[in-house]
Amino acid sequence: MKYDYKPIDEALKTLLEYSRLDIGYVETDLIDAIGMVLAEDIYAPIDLPPFDRSAVDGYAVCSDATTSASPSNPIPLKVVVGEALASCDEAIPVATGQRIPKGADAVVMLEDVIRKDNGIYVIKSLPKYANVSRKGEDVKAGEKIASKGEIIKPIHLALFSALGITKLRIFKHVHVGVAATGSEIAEPAYGVRAYDEGLILDSTSILIRSTLSKYRFIKVNWYGFVKDDENEIANIAKMALDENNILILTGGTGPSEQDKTFRAILSIDSNAKVIARGLAMRPGRPTSIVVVKSKPVFLLSGFPVAAYIALNVVVLNFLFRALNIKEELFIEVPAQMTKRISGSIGYDSFIRVKVFKCDEDLCTEPIMIHGSGVLKSLLHSNALLVIPKNVEGFDKGDRVWVKML
Amino acid sequence: MKYDYKPIDEALKTLLEYSRLDIGYVETDLIDAIGMVLAEDIYAPIDLPPFDRSAVDGYAVCSDATTSASPSNPIPLKVVVGEALASCDEAIPVATGQRIPKGADAVVMLEDVIRKDNGIYVIKSLPKYANVSRKGEDVKAGEKIASKGEIIKPIHLALFSALGITKLRIFKHVHVGVAATGSEIAEPAYGVRAYDEGLILDSTSILIRSTLSKYRFIKVNWYGFVKDDENEIANIAKMALDENNILILTGGTGPSEQDKTFRAILSIDSNAKVIARGLAMRPGRPTSIVVVKSKPVFLLSGFPVAAYIALNVVVLNFLFRALNIKEELFIEVPAQMTKRISGSIGYDSFIRVKVFKCDEDLCTEPIMIHGSGVLKSLLHSNALLVIPKNVEGFDKGDRVWVKML
Repeated sequence: MKYDYKPIDEALKTLLEYSRLDIGYVETDLIDAIGMVLAEDIYAPIDLPPFDRSAVDGYAVCSDATTSASPSNPIPLKVVVGEALASCDEAIPVATGQRIPKGADAVVMLEDVIRKDNGIYVIKSLPKYANVSRKGEDVKAGEKIASKGEIIKPIHLALFSALGITKLRIFKHVHVGVAATGSEIAEPAYGVRAYDEGLILDSTSILIRSTLSKYRFIKVNWYGFVKDDENEIANIAKMALDENNILILTGGTGPSEQDKTFRAILSIDSNAKVIARGLAMRPGRPTSIVVVKSKPVFLLSGFPVAAYIALNVVVLNFLFRALNIKEELFIEVPAQMTKRISGSIGYDSFIRVKVFKCDEDLCTEPIMIHGSGVLKSLLHSNALLVIPKNVEGFDKGDRVWVKML
Repeated sequence: MKYDYKPIDEALKTLLEYSRLDIGYVETDLIDAIGMVLAEDIYAPIDLPPFDRSAVDGYAVCSDATTSASPSNPIPLKVVVGEALASCDEAIPVATGQRIPKGADAVVMLEDVIRKDNGIYVIKSLPKYANVSRKGEDVKAGEKIASKGEIIKPIHLALFSALGITKLRIFKHVHVGVAATGSEIAEPAYGVRAYDEGLILDSTSILIRSTLSKYRFIKVNWYGFVKDDENEIANIAKMALDENNILILTGGTGPSEQDKTFRAILSIDSNAKVIARGLAMRPGRPTSIVVVKSKPVFLLSGFPVAAYIALNVVVLNFLFRALNIKEELFIEVPAQMTKRISGSIGYDSFIRVKVFKCDEDLCTEPIMIHGSGVLKSLLHSNALLVIPKNVEGFDKGDRVWVKML
């Protein structure tokens, strides 16, 4: 089947239509939910603070009693202990976070009083609710505080915990099966003699597997290295598809080898739907997508840089959209180009760049190494610059947006 | 002991002098090293590519034979199979990544040939080494490719793997003990009735624990909630110190309660060294640091926002320096202030801000909620703005650097 190099966005749109990610959800304790994807909207069951409370260490007082207070006019108050002021001549000691006693409506800080005998002198006038955190000022009961699709962060857990929420409904792990095809690929344990024997030590599959493992909501299942044999590839792919939500195959990018992998995938399911045979991206042109039994199969290049870029802008991009994840896949920042760079018309070009501080700005320098197999270019880059398929390129001095890796 | 509010940098410098992080190292397989800290420098054992290889699918040829080739002057070559060209009339098919046969010094791409009978016509002139990845062009044998102190990323593994490196020496996990002090703190499972009983549901400790757990090289050990009892705190702290490299205690920030925690820590070791009793930071002023048996003990505020900021700019900052980690703790980006904001002279102020795209730039808006106990301010912020202790504040329109969270 001939390559047609479909635009990435078009391919993803079709893929979202034709595939299903039946992830399912599970109830979990807060601490185990970190990094997972929330599967429900969360509403605050109570106000936070649940009552007016002191924002400082000091004395709860009637604000009216302090109206004329100043260093030259210290106002004396009797210090009592209890849950209510009997009169506005009294003050009750409170620590930060404590409930404001009845009758009081402000808290005077320790540094604004002079202690004397069993009383205090207030030397500062306080407005109503001075140093008081009002009931519901942080969160109102009934307020939506988190949405389905959010990746759960530490601050979510803190908020849920303070609200007495102890269980969360989260999406189960997305299971991603990964296998590397290509008779020429050897495991690193084989050693550098591999190269003398015409073999290539794997780097693509470990790059893919370890990049996926950064996301806690993804579980990577590794199916190892598969020879360039249509039956063998079909068998492994079939098993991996049964056991996972998504399948990624790397390698076999030469036209003949990829045909083999491609045919093997099609042979599994007579209703397989080819979403894209090649994508309009560089590097990563051979990236292909097939839906088999409603599950997406991604055929990535065997070259590490091409596969890495396709993993990010195609596979992870798809996953974020399919799960409606409410978070950007990349932090994007504006930076100044230090060099001219051209794309290729008709293809989205992904340029590895190094972003660094320059004077009061960020600058970005393309890492200029040709060939998608070059690993050091990725090691020295910290961001991706996209030159869209209808843009010729960028000039030195242009302000561009880059995606931080 | 009175608070002295030491500048953060001064405190960290003293702490680095007086404490020891004896982490030790371990040998590990590549895939298990992701996110850990490299404990050795790594040098390339071989060139990469290990030989001249084809960067495209095509035919290996003598470049000299193509000097006059053009669509109007196609040069005929005989296609042969083997490891060497017998003469420059010949061409050998090669796939991307394959070794360049002897005698050849360039590769003509498939689209630049016309196939005919058992030969090809080259229609494009090729310079020497056209479409050839030269031996060592990516990495030279003996070159340093990674340094002790780097956090191991997927691309490291890809490069190591391609070089036949299968084992890495990494630092063991940094064990961080965490306990929450304060008789007023209840576990979330206790439910919201806690608030009616004058208790507070925990949010600080889960925030600290889950934030630490983002770092794969950190192992969090949780010692639970401890009552405000000097002996009990001392016992837990002693045990936790024996079992960890670092101890974090949250809570007891009221002057009286923190004294209790502070005294408990000093009681463990008669040679305990107080590094800082309070730091010149806001929020987070009560943050204190003591070295006990050469190990750092951090006393953080019981208030979640104050504790979270101190965790980042004090505890993690210390850890990154102590391990000589060659990576910034935060991505820093420049952004335009949308509002005036003031700091407090004498204190580094940490302002929670929201960074967002505005036209062709990033803008940053302070999340204006007073009180360090306010959780929603953290949920809606995605960065920290530091107003250094000798700076009054920033004006609307000022360009500031913010730390992405």
